[in-house]
Amino acid sequence: MSEPLRVGIAGLGTVGAAVARILTNKSNSLLHRCGRPIAITGVSARDRDRDRGVDLSGAEWFDSPVALAKSDKIDVFVELIGGENGAALDGIRAALESGRHVVTANKALLARHGVEMALAAEERGLILNYEAAVAGGVPVIKTMRESLAANDVGRVYGILNGTANYILTRMEQDEISFEECLADAQRLGYAEADPTFDIEGFDTAHKLSILTSLAFGTQVAIDEIYVEGISNISLSDIHAARELGYRIKLLGVAQRTATGIEQRVHPTMVPLGSVIAQVDSVTNAVAIEADTVGSLLLSGPGAGGDATASAVIGDIADIAKSRPGHQEAPVFGRPAEELEPYQRAEISTHAGGYFIRMTVHDRIGVFASLAGHMAENGISLASIVQHGSPNGEENAMKNVVLVTHETTESHIRAALDAVLADGHLVSKPQVIRIEPAG
Amino acid sequence: MSEPLRVGIAGLGTVGAAVARILTNKSNSLLHRCGRPIAITGVSARDRDRDRGVDLSGAEWFDSPVALAKSDKIDVFVELIGGENGAALDGIRAALESGRHVVTANKALLARHGVEMALAAEERGLILNYEAAVAGGVPVIKTMRESLAANDVGRVYGILNGTANYILTRMEQDEISFEECLADAQRLGYAEADPTFDIEGFDTAHKLSILTSLAFGTQVAIDEIYVEGISNISLSDIHAARELGYRIKLLGVAQRTATGIEQRVHPTMVPLGSVIAQVDSVTNAVAIEADTVGSLLLSGPGAGGDATASAVIGDIADIAKSRPGHQEAPVFGRPAEELEPYQRAEISTHAGGYFIRMTVHDRIGVFASLAGHMAENGISLASIVQHGSPNGEENAMKNVVLVTHETTESHIRAALDAVLADGHLVSKPQVIRIEPAG
Repeated sequence: MSEPLRVGIAGLGTVGAAVARILTNKSNSLLHRCGRPIAITGVSARDRDRDRGVDLSGAEWFDSPVALAKSDKIDVFVELIGGENGAALDGIRAALESGRHVVTANKALLARHGVEMALAAEERGLILNYEAAVAGGVPVIKTMRESLAANDVGRVYGILNGTANYILTRMEQDEISFEECLADAQRLGYAEADPTFDIEGFDTAHKLSILTSLAFGTQVAIDEIYVEGISNISLSDIHAARELGYRIKLLGVAQRTATGIEQRVHPTMVPLGSVIAQVDSVTNAVAIEADTVGSLLLSGPGAGGDATASAVIGDIADIAKSRPGHQEAPVFGRPAEELEPYQRAEISTHAGGYFIRMTVHDRIGVFASLAGHMAENGISLASIVQHGSPNGEENAMKNVVLVTHETTESHIRAALDAVLADGHLVSKPQVIRIEPAG
Repeated sequence: MSEPLRVGIAGLGTVGAAVARILTNKSNSLLHRCGRPIAITGVSARDRDRDRGVDLSGAEWFDSPVALAKSDKIDVFVELIGGENGAALDGIRAALESGRHVVTANKALLARHGVEMALAAEERGLILNYEAAVAGGVPVIKTMRESLAANDVGRVYGILNGTANYILTRMEQDEISFEECLADAQRLGYAEADPTFDIEGFDTAHKLSILTSLAFGTQVAIDEIYVEGISNISLSDIHAARELGYRIKLLGVAQRTATGIEQRVHPTMVPLGSVIAQVDSVTNAVAIEADTVGSLLLSGPGAGGDATASAVIGDIADIAKSRPGHQEAPVFGRPAEELEPYQRAEISTHAGGYFIRMTVHDRIGVFASLAGHMAENGISLASIVQHGSPNGEENAMKNVVLVTHETTESHIRAALDAVLADGHLVSKPQVIRIEPAG
């Protein structure tokens, strides 16, 4: 029998414990698949005594992840601590410096230090795998890094945060407000006590930055992403979207344009009949549009201990099958030293359709003002839906929803500024981008 | 610079020409991704003079695929000839015997000879890649073979034939008959002059047999598949399905049951709100349900020269990145000599819901007969839809649609035999299985 692959696991929370348990319970099946055993020889976690449903007595315990990373008892350092700096970063750095392969699920760390880590791994011929960092159990990293070798990607977009998608799904299905849904999500454990990271789009941005590098061969540029969350999406928006044949999803979108790469995270109207519109609750999905293959869509669980462990163990199994010292695929698909600097496309030049919901005073001249300012800015309207106030009072308010044909962010802004200046708007208009989706 | 990977392409039809063209046009990008050049050093095709949009003058021409396969000018034999025997089989056998890696898109050959080819490859440490054989450009083979190492699959199912899906989509969207759609598909090049292979489910069965082996670690068993095509699906079925919240898709389904593995290809009702129900036209999709990850769905183009070439080149690139002589993943996920014999579950024991559409004589006692025979066979009804004859004539006919709760094929057959014996049916009832789908 071949030598076992010796694994050190740093972090034994939900995911780490699931990885340890499944590696143990499925050791025989993994041996068949990999041609060699996978043995947990080291672990590092804060609480040594907690029952994690797996016997780890055969592994050496390390108080410090860095000590585990440097130990000559392991071949692979599995980082499941989390956090973009601190112990996770120190551990991965130490592991690569000590010649250990690395598997991580840490999107925040890769978004911030991915290129540095890739350079460190590649100069030593080490493998750095991170399938679990984006879309949990969905094999999007392997697909982009390996399967699409013959492709130049034009656009990649997806539902990358389960919490946000759960809230939007519940709002539509159960007709309840954002606040109620969020409270439910927190009660069910789908949302953190402080949900900012998920609902304001930052988690999606971390994942998007990694997909962007894989898609376009550019350096990870987490600070160059336009980010807008879902906390100001109302039931009125959801109803109006449905009426016009759309559903609202929080998407991360990266797209090659003439002026550079667009990276944006925002609530998005997708056509009701598209596949991605059906991706509901905590499920994630990534769509890839590329020159050779056309359009792919991958969907599945974006979080959860077991689903994430599935991706982590797939990464470990790939290392077990590889020839020692032979780094198979570059970390971001191309060698890290050849990644191009990220060239940002201005969001104001983003071309697309827009959904605009306004509450206006119901008086003469409102429509003329709206239509006039749209026309002045070269904006062509695809549909207009107007619901009058139910009781027909004078000076009442009206909801007006406009859907535009393709235009740019700056034209929309100019038109709305002009409408605002005319004094017809009751409140700030809601503007949601429309994304063509298959 | 590293030594080039030397590729020999056998078959320069639509896919072969696309592979050659893209390998040539993207040689620089592939060099970056693989760390070494990929060079086409040999080709074999019938017509040496045809313009294929690519300069192949640098490659040696072979009249026989077998001579190409044995040539010491190549490291990888790319079989794009097609057919389950003949030149394709001879070529692959010769390549493996001569120590060449193999890439193929040939599902028929793998369905018939997959285990033999896998044994031949594995005993020599050679790679046999076949991503393009199932669902074209969709990376389902790599996902099942590599990403899901930590998983035991419970069910895998999918839309695996673009022609059949195109016809079903057009029938519903344009309200035209099966025959009209088929004629259109033939005109557009989506269906062959003899469409039997696609519309009667045999192509889907070939692909399913490969997914089954990957899913369950069993030997490929193409002759153990229940196969039923879409040629008797009528517009009435499509309308009735829609009314009841379903859409009809031709699915291949493989499922582990208590008595063995079920493999079946048949028209299937899937819930309208499911993701797979939205997969339309020539797009393919594969859903995988597994213990660790949960449910995954992958969709994309199932055919076409470029999409198929994307998968073939992904396979070639994986070989370019591998260490020479090191076979990375076993061909079917587990070593071929450890694949278990296929144990067939009887289709008559298949448990699920059924859609039954009947045309009955409109007379007293019909419903009592129907309901009675269903009850006698322990079949519980989920819905009944009955549309009377439009003009209310005596002795007219009625369309009755039943949807059952979970029952077995044998119970359904027994009940329908009894209904038939009562003489109420105008014609043979239409029975379509319902598949739970996410």
